Amino acid sequence: MRVAIVGIGLIGGSMALALKEKGFADWIIGVDANEAHQKKALELKLVDEILPLNEAALKSDLIILAIPVNAAEKILPALLNITDKQVLMDVGSTKEGLLKCIENHPKRGRFVATHPMWGTEYSGPQAAVSGAFKDKATVICNKEENDADAIELIEKLYATLGMHLVYMNAKAHDVHVAYVSHISHITSFALANTVLEKEREEDAIFELASGGFESTVRLAKSNSAMWVPIFMQNKENVLDVLNEHISQLRKFKACLEKENYDYLKELIEQANGIKRILK
Amino acid sequence: MRVAIVGIGLIGGSMALALKEKGFADWIIGVDANEAHQKKALELKLVDEILPLNEAALKSDLIILAIPVNAAEKILPALLNITDKQVLMDVGSTKEGLLKCIENHPKRGRFVATHPMWGTEYSGPQAAVSGAFKDKATVICNKEENDADAIELIEKLYATLGMHLVYMNAKAHDVHVAYVSHISHITSFALANTVLEKEREEDAIFELASGGFESTVRLAKSNSAMWVPIFMQNKENVLDVLNEHISQLRKFKACLEKENYDYLKELIEQANGIKRILK
Repeated sequence: MRVAIVGIGLIGGSMALALKEKGFADWIIGVDANEAHQKKALELKLVDEILPLNEAALKSDLIILAIPVNAAEKILPALLNITDKQVLMDVGSTKEGLLKCIENHPKRGRFVATHPMWGTEYSGPQAAVSGAFKDKATVICNKEENDADAIELIEKLYATLGMHLVYMNAKAHDVHVAYVSHISHITSFALANTVLEKEREEDAIFELASGGFESTVRLAKSNSAMWVPIFMQNKENVLDVLNEHISQLRKFKACLEKENYDYLKELIEQANGIKRILK
Repeated sequence: MRVAIVGIGLIGGSMALALKEKGFADWIIGVDANEAHQKKALELKLVDEILPLNEAALKSDLIILAIPVNAAEKILPALLNITDKQVLMDVGSTKEGLLKCIENHPKRGRFVATHPMWGTEYSGPQAAVSGAFKDKATVICNKEENDADAIELIEKLYATLGMHLVYMNAKAHDVHVAYVSHISHITSFALANTVLEKEREEDAIFELASGGFESTVRLAKSNSAMWVPIFMQNKENVLDVLNEHISQLRKFKACLEKENYDYLKELIEQANGIKRILK
């Protein structure tokens, strides 16, 4: 099978490696607006050739969009216009806006909306890794709107990668990821800025940073080209969660200000409930 | 050398393992108020024997306090009263309050205030691991108040563990750890509570949680018996950092509310500056 991957970064590049390794793809065509990324992707053998978008699309059986969610919104309707039997899918972090763009498109059924729940804080083709995705979940949204052969192909693709599938409508997906992914990024960005601000006064501050600090700010390395569009598209949900998070932080603040250490203990024990979920 | 370790949990237990492995200690005496922990520590061979506090202290050359910071404040002056040639040290996360308790004690010089910057979110003797501490930093506070033989012994101990030393006064230490450790714990606790609150409505929310979420909430497993006293003792510094962190979060909130995506991009790029520090 010939697969076009649009955007050969962390996710697109890792997907290219996995599909080739598993024998799902015989030939991978890379599409990328960034010339340095094109070169790097060829050099790292992530892709077999680089082509312009439309040519790549017409030459492929499957087209995977692995670009920022705002770019996907622009490209997807045009791709549906020019393709026919091809199956298309995306791997983006928000879904409602994207599906809205094509809800009345006559070839809507050819596009499968997916979100593999895997990533790292790095970006670009050099961030691509072998063995990604395995044993993680992929969300497929609004499956009932898909042509039978299209959804079947994509389900097979994710099974090949060793992922398990979770079905959800786009609206529910966007709420869920606001809680389990987007808010983590905002708190990491904000925490990094809090500490970097202090560092301007005191050089030595990071000498003491250990594993705990590192894990909470790791996501603050994530790039703005990917994350600004995600926050734009999921604005309402992210704001809801962010408000809730700020009010949870205010409870800790109030405990300290009022020296209410019994309630502080209670809040911590409540948070320990996360052990049920993270083993 | 005979070493008494008071509190055979994550840190005390890991310290016991390391000191034995490196040949720094020939005999380790465990002290723990919790009978289950006493039993477990013997069973896991973290310690050679269990004794009551005073007896252990008198039988040892070195006494290490690895108990919550409020408990250390109670025990330390009494231990200085009954000991003579022994060296004492702690491994706690706050220093100003503890040193205040003994500032006029005639044997002040025998106690070395230290904070090895290593830990995990787990607790109890079963959380102790071999190979901990290595290549991390240890802070030593107010070194100039120590007897020469006492500081020399402790510097040798940390060199044996493969740690590098950072010297700081207690006040500076408490500010620094508020930034690089205490605030990370508060944001993790608050983030866990934010998401657990939502989970009450929706079972499926954690099905999608992946590595990013896991790393930002990992610290929320940390136990209240250790952390409430830390927050109590470092209240003023933690409140300062928490206020700063909430105002950083509010900037993200304002960007979303006002759809000011240029400033959002700027905030994220500013946070990316953390790459300079975390490689």
